[in-house]
Amino acid sequence: MSLAPTPKTIGILGGGQLGRMLAQSASLLNIPVVILDSDGPTTLGPAKQILNTSGHIDGSFRDAEKISELAKKVDVITVEIEHVDVGALEAAMAKGKGKVEVHPSPETIRLIQDKYLQKMHLKSVGCPVGDFRKIERWRYDGRGNYLLKSDSSVEAAIEALGGGNLQGGGLYAEKYVPFRAEIAVIVVRSLTGQVVSYPAVETVHKDNICHLVWAPYRISSIEQDPKVAERAERVAREAIEKGFGTGVGVFGVEMFLLDDDSILINEIAPRPHNSGHYTIEACESSQYDNHLRAILGLPLGSTAMRVPSAGMLNILGDSPPNLVTLALAIPGATPHLYGKSPARPGRKMGHITIVGESDAQVRERMAPLLSSDPLPAPPHLLGHSHPHPLISIIMGSDSDLPILLPAARTLQTYFPSIPFEVTLVSAHRTPLRLVKFAQTAKSRGIRCIIAGAGGAAHLPGMTASLTSVPVVGVPVDSKSVAGGGGGLAGVDAMYSILQMPRGIPVATVAINNSTNAALLAIRILSGGIPRLQGEMEAYLERLGEEVEGKVRRMGEGSYDGDGKLEKGVGGWEGYGK
Amino acid sequence: MSLAPTPKTIGILGGGQLGRMLAQSASLLNIPVVILDSDGPTTLGPAKQILNTSGHIDGSFRDAEKISELAKKVDVITVEIEHVDVGALEAAMAKGKGKVEVHPSPETIRLIQDKYLQKMHLKSVGCPVGDFRKIERWRYDGRGNYLLKSDSSVEAAIEALGGGNLQGGGLYAEKYVPFRAEIAVIVVRSLTGQVVSYPAVETVHKDNICHLVWAPYRISSIEQDPKVAERAERVAREAIEKGFGTGVGVFGVEMFLLDDDSILINEIAPRPHNSGHYTIEACESSQYDNHLRAILGLPLGSTAMRVPSAGMLNILGDSPPNLVTLALAIPGATPHLYGKSPARPGRKMGHITIVGESDAQVRERMAPLLSSDPLPAPPHLLGHSHPHPLISIIMGSDSDLPILLPAARTLQTYFPSIPFEVTLVSAHRTPLRLVKFAQTAKSRGIRCIIAGAGGAAHLPGMTASLTSVPVVGVPVDSKSVAGGGGGLAGVDAMYSILQMPRGIPVATVAINNSTNAALLAIRILSGGIPRLQGEMEAYLERLGEEVEGKVRRMGEGSYDGDGKLEKGVGGWEGYGK
Repeated sequence: MSLAPTPKTIGILGGGQLGRMLAQSASLLNIPVVILDSDGPTTLGPAKQILNTSGHIDGSFRDAEKISELAKKVDVITVEIEHVDVGALEAAMAKGKGKVEVHPSPETIRLIQDKYLQKMHLKSVGCPVGDFRKIERWRYDGRGNYLLKSDSSVEAAIEALGGGNLQGGGLYAEKYVPFRAEIAVIVVRSLTGQVVSYPAVETVHKDNICHLVWAPYRISSIEQDPKVAERAERVAREAIEKGFGTGVGVFGVEMFLLDDDSILINEIAPRPHNSGHYTIEACESSQYDNHLRAILGLPLGSTAMRVPSAGMLNILGDSPPNLVTLALAIPGATPHLYGKSPARPGRKMGHITIVGESDAQVRERMAPLLSSDPLPAPPHLLGHSHPHPLISIIMGSDSDLPILLPAARTLQTYFPSIPFEVTLVSAHRTPLRLVKFAQTAKSRGIRCIIAGAGGAAHLPGMTASLTSVPVVGVPVDSKSVAGGGGGLAGVDAMYSILQMPRGIPVATVAINNSTNAALLAIRILSGGIPRLQGEMEAYLERLGEEVEGKVRRMGEGSYDGDGKLEKGVGGWEGYGK
Repeated sequence: MSLAPTPKTIGILGGGQLGRMLAQSASLLNIPVVILDSDGPTTLGPAKQILNTSGHIDGSFRDAEKISELAKKVDVITVEIEHVDVGALEAAMAKGKGKVEVHPSPETIRLIQDKYLQKMHLKSVGCPVGDFRKIERWRYDGRGNYLLKSDSSVEAAIEALGGGNLQGGGLYAEKYVPFRAEIAVIVVRSLTGQVVSYPAVETVHKDNICHLVWAPYRISSIEQDPKVAERAERVAREAIEKGFGTGVGVFGVEMFLLDDDSILINEIAPRPHNSGHYTIEACESSQYDNHLRAILGLPLGSTAMRVPSAGMLNILGDSPPNLVTLALAIPGATPHLYGKSPARPGRKMGHITIVGESDAQVRERMAPLLSSDPLPAPPHLLGHSHPHPLISIIMGSDSDLPILLPAARTLQTYFPSIPFEVTLVSAHRTPLRLVKFAQTAKSRGIRCIIAGAGGAAHLPGMTASLTSVPVVGVPVDSKSVAGGGGGLAGVDAMYSILQMPRGIPVATVAINNSTNAALLAIRILSGGIPRLQGEMEAYLERLGEEVEGKVRRMGEGSYDGDGKLEKGVGGWEGYGK
C-alpha cells in the first residue's frame, strides 16, 4: 500500500524543468511518473534525473510511436511543453479506447500552439486581445517574434523569422501595444470544471525572456485603478472558462496592462508557467501541486499566498555565474537549479525565489542578484519617500509638518527597516485626492496610515471611511503650527478624530504626539512582521534605561535650582533657590 | 558547468525519509548525492527513488566495506541515522587520508549513540538533564524504553527491553519526570562554528513515537514564564556549542518542560529530525537545506518562520489510511509520502504539514486529520474565550462588560474566523495580574489587546507599557455602567487613555465605542492576515448599503413626527407635529 491518493500513473511529454518540478510534486504523493524525452549522450534531462525508475522513455515527445509507447504505460498523459504532436496524442487516445486520459485536451493544445488561432479564438469568445492580422504569404516555425518599428524593417523581420524557409504555421502581425506593465496569472481548471486562480503577478522580460517576477502585483501610484489585480485575475479566469472549455490543468495567462489600466491578453500556455515558479515557496499549494491535482481529479489546493511578498529571478545560461552563491547568503532565498548543461545564452538553467515580509524587503533581498543588471532597482534615498512603503504619513498642509516629522524621525531612527512615505492629502482642499489616496492604499501595499490634522480635523476619519487599512490619527494643536490660530489646544482636533461613529474607527493618539503614532504603527505592523515585536521590546527597554539613568543622577543630587537634571549642581537643598 | 555552488559530492549513510528530504534539497542545488543503504527485493528505499543515478550503493550503512566503497565516491559523508558503525567511519576517514570529510564527526555520533554516554557528557558540560543511573548488569540494543511505574514491574521492564538477550550498549534508568510539555529545537552548526537555531516547537508523542508538532511553541497561561521559547532555544544551542564542539550539521534537541517551567534535555539526534519536518514549508530555509549548507561549508540559511503558524502530523503504518485524501481538501496542507512499503504499525510512512495565519487556524485545519485520535483538540464553545486567541478583550471590572460586549459581538458576528478571549484585569485591584497578563500576551500569540476602562482608566496605558502588542483603549463613561458615579461623561477616562507620554501609545477610540475597538483590532490584524482586508471592505459596504436604504425611505417620507424613520407615516409636513 503506497498511501497515494490515487492509483493512477502519470506520463509527461517533455522532461525539462517544468517536468522536473511536476515530478517533485508527484513524489510527495507517491504518484508514479513516466517521462518521454530524448536522453543526452551522457546525461539525463532535468525531470528524469530526479525519478529513479527504469520506465522512462528515450525519444522525442513529438514522435507518434513513442507517445503510443508512453500511453501503454500510464493512465494520464500531460505536457510540460505545448509544441507536441497533437495528432499523435489524439491517435494514442483513440487507440487506447478511452483508457488513457490526456490533460490538457488535444484540442486545447492545438488552439494554443498556433498564436494566430489562439488570438482568433480568444477574440471570438469575447476576451480582450490587441489588434492582429494574418500574413498569408509567409510561413514560420511558430516560435519567433520580431518587433517591427517601421515599414522599412519588414524585410529584416521576415529574414529574422526564417526568411524563405519558414514552414509550419502562418506568420501574423500584431499591433504594437505600449504598456505600463506585464501581468501574469496562473489559472487552474479541475476535471469537474472548477476554475481558480493564483494572485496576479508582475513579470519583467528581457530580450523576450522572462527575467523577473514580483508577487503579488501592486499598483505604483494613487492614479491607478486599485482593482487592477482583481481585474487581471478575472480576465485570466474568464479566458480559460470561455476559451478552453475542455482544458484541464494549469494555464499561464500573460497580459499587458496598458497606460489607461486596461488589460489585453498576450498569450496563454496550457501548462505550469515560468511566472508561477514562485508559488512553490510563496503559496499554500504550488502550481505543480495543483496541475497534478487537477489532472488526477483530486481536490484543488489553496492558491493563497502564505508569505506577504515574493520575487523570482530566472538563471539563464548567460547570467552571472555566481548568482547561486550570492543567493545562499540572502535570507529567504531558495535557488532551484534544473540539472541542465551546457549553459547556453538564454537557456533557462534555474531560478531563485525570494520571500519576505514586504515588497521592500523582497526587493532589497533581490538587489545583490541584480547588481549586474542594466536596469537595477532604483536606490532609496534617505529622507525621501520609499517607493514601496508600508506606512504612509499624511497631513493636510505642510504647516503640520513640524508636528508630523517626529513620526518620520522615529521610524527612521529606531525602525530603519520599515519603509514609509510622507505626503500631503487635504480633506478640504483636495477631497478627490483624498478619495484616490485612501482607495488605493491597500493595493499599493500600505499597511498603516498616520494622518495628522488640526481644527476640524477631518482627514483621519474620512481616510478611514474609504479604506480597510488602519488609520492612526494625530490631533494637531493648530496654535502650535505656523499660520495657526483659533485652535483650542488641539482639543477641537482631538474630538474630531476620536469621536468617530460606530463602524469607522480611527486609532487616536495624544495631541501633537506623532512619535506615539509612529510607535503605534510599528506595533500594528508587528502582527504581520513578528521580528518587530522584539525591536519594540528593545525600544521599551531603552526608554526604561533612560529613566534608570535619571534615577541615579537624581539620587546623586544632579539637578539645578530650576528642577533641571544637570551634572554637578545641587541636591535637594538647592531646589527652588 | 552545473552552476552548483560547490564541486563536492555528498554520500549519505542511510536512505530513508531523512535521506530523501536531504536529497530533495541537494537536487535544488545540482549537488550529486550517493546513497548507501540496502535495496529491497523489488523496490528502492525512499532516498534512492528520487535520485536517478547508477552510483548508489546496495548494502548496510553499518558495513565497513560498503562505507569504504562510498568514501571513494564522495567528498563529504553524512548520516541520516545515528546507528552507524563509527569505527568503520573513522577507518574510512583514515584510509582516505583526509580526502573525505565526515559530518557530524564520528566522535559526535559515538557520544550520541549511547544515551547514557550522551547524558553523562551533557551533565559534565553543565547542560540541564534529569537524574539517571547506569544499570551494570543488563545489556540491551540501545533503542528501547520502558516506563517503570513501581518496583514491582522491574522484571516486566527487563523482559520488554530484551530480557537476558540484551546486547550492545548498557541499560540505564532515568528518574521519571512529570512534564507540562515536550519541546524540541533544531540547531545548526556550520563548519566555521556558527550556531543558529530554529524556533522552539511543541512535540506531542503517542506510544513513544512523534505524533504531532506545533510551531512555534506558545505558552498557554499567563502564569507561565513568557520567555520559555527563548530559553529552550538557548539551552539547545548551548548543548551543541558546549557538548559537541566538533559536530557540524543539524541537531534535533528534545527537551522536557517541567511544571515549574524549568527545562531538561531529553535527548539529542545528530541529524535532521522529525520535529523539524515543518521547516520545509514554514521556514525561510529548511533543516535539510541547512544541513547541506553546514556540511558543505556554504552560508547557513535563515531559520526564521515565513508563516505565522504551522503544524505537522506523522503518518504511520497504522494511521487511518485516508489521511492523505483528507489532507488534500485542507487549505495550507502539504502531504509528504516517503515511498515506503509495507505499512507496518508504527512505521513512519509520511507526514502532513499544515501552515496558516494563526495557531487557531492551523489547529482548525488539522482537526479533520485528528478526528480518529483518542485525544482530539478540544472544541471551541461559542461565547467562551478561545484557547488560542488573537485578540484579548480586557476590562477592570465586570461592571464594564455591558460597554465591552459590543466588541465581542462585533467580532463574533462579522469576523467569526478571528479567535478572541474576554477577561478581567484590574490595574488597581490586581496590579500583578496586569503585569503577568501584559508580559505574556506576545508569547500567548495575542496580536491585539482591547482594554476598556473608566475614571482614572489606567488599564490600557499600563498594559501598553508592559508589552509590544498594540493596545486599543476604550474610554468608559462611568455613569453609564452599574455602580458608576462621579464620571465626567467618559472625558476623564478619555484623557487618561489618550494622553499617554511619548514612547507608549494607546490607540484610543470614541467614548463607550467598543464596536469601533473591535473593528480597529480587525484592521490591525489585517496587516498579517490580508484576507481580513476584503472582509473589512465588505463590512464597510454593508454600512453604506444600510444608509442607502434609509436614503430611499427618507425620500419616500417614511418617518414619523418625532423624526424616526418608520414605514407608512408622514413626509416633511408631518415633522414636529
